[in-house]
Amino acid sequence: MVRTAGSDGVKTLQAIRKAGVKRIYKHGFEAMKLRSLAEDVGIQAGSLYNYIRNKEEFLFLLLKEVLEELLEGLERELAGIDDPKEALIRFINFHLRWHTARKEEVFIGNMELRSLSKQHLQEIIRMRTEYESRLRRILERGNEAGEWSVADPQVISYSIIASLTGVCNWYSPRGRLSQDEIIAIYTDHVLGAVGAR
Amino acid sequence: MVRTAGSDGVKTLQAIRKAGVKRIYKHGFEAMKLRSLAEDVGIQAGSLYNYIRNKEEFLFLLLKEVLEELLEGLERELAGIDDPKEALIRFINFHLRWHTARKEEVFIGNMELRSLSKQHLQEIIRMRTEYESRLRRILERGNEAGEWSVADPQVISYSIIASLTGVCNWYSPRGRLSQDEIIAIYTDHVLGAVGAR
Repeated sequence: MVRTAGSDGVKTLQAIRKAGVKRIYKHGFEAMKLRSLAEDVGIQAGSLYNYIRNKEEFLFLLLKEVLEELLEGLERELAGIDDPKEALIRFINFHLRWHTARKEEVFIGNMELRSLSKQHLQEIIRMRTEYESRLRRILERGNEAGEWSVADPQVISYSIIASLTGVCNWYSPRGRLSQDEIIAIYTDHVLGAVGAR
Repeated sequence: MVRTAGSDGVKTLQAIRKAGVKRIYKHGFEAMKLRSLAEDVGIQAGSLYNYIRNKEEFLFLLLKEVLEELLEGLERELAGIDDPKEALIRFINFHLRWHTARKEEVFIGNMELRSLSKQHLQEIIRMRTEYESRLRRILERGNEAGEWSVADPQVISYSIIASLTGVCNWYSPRGRLSQDEIIAIYTDHVLGAVGAR
């Protein structure tokens, strides 16, 4: 993520990123050795520094890119939606699809914040807060429109996000329920919780 | 957790356990060195083996003891409660109090399952499933009694537990809301979600 000249460089960087996610997911960030990461992608340990400045920055950029994609995805999902109930349904749908598709990155994003520098941690928390605030705003708009009456939109936005993200812990594409069935169950549950079933 | 003769042994074991939780919480299980753990409690690295058979077993016993206490606590909380709504309210109350009081152990319990042996992992999952099934049974009993109508008690039990456990991520005793206020918000939210507000 430092110098990446040409398409080979981009491919190598993608491979490093992918291998990094797998290693951190499996063993934890602190236990990850850069030498092992270089071996995973078939390059010399020294060459790794063409792509990564250091371990901590690698983690930061990994988490940052994931959050950027998450925020952009949500932006597209909610574009032009004024109705709060419709926006809430779309948020649930988007959050569940995105998080079940990227379980490993979600896990790392929740676990390895402890290994970030103070400055990088603040930046990541700022982005997470931005994402959470989209849901909070939807709940507030529903309050204003008389669609529902949520006493504490901030706490309830945390509650909804935690409940949806929890699906990562047990969801399997080969499980009892399809993704669409799960989304239907959670949508009904959340609409009931806010009083808009 | 192997040989613990006399009260000094028990105290040392408790100190090892406490130091272990802090280390795993901060750096991750794989990055924890037994030598550092011995230093934390002021004993020789070799003496540690009077208390711990090996690292993996230490983690297993740590998680197992936490789950045993959790299950026993819930048992006491629900003893003699027949009414499903009352049982649900008590479950929410108990889960929130217990998890906000023991954030570090909760974090480890959610993160470090990857480091357990297959047999130990199965044992821990069995205990977690037992805990989750108490909530599922409450939801089922509410269905049977006509108290509410929850379409998929298993999924909804996961959803409720994830949403409650999520409070660990942001709760602070010095925060905007007291523990009682948080419990009131979540109770109302969950009762709404199952249709029993």
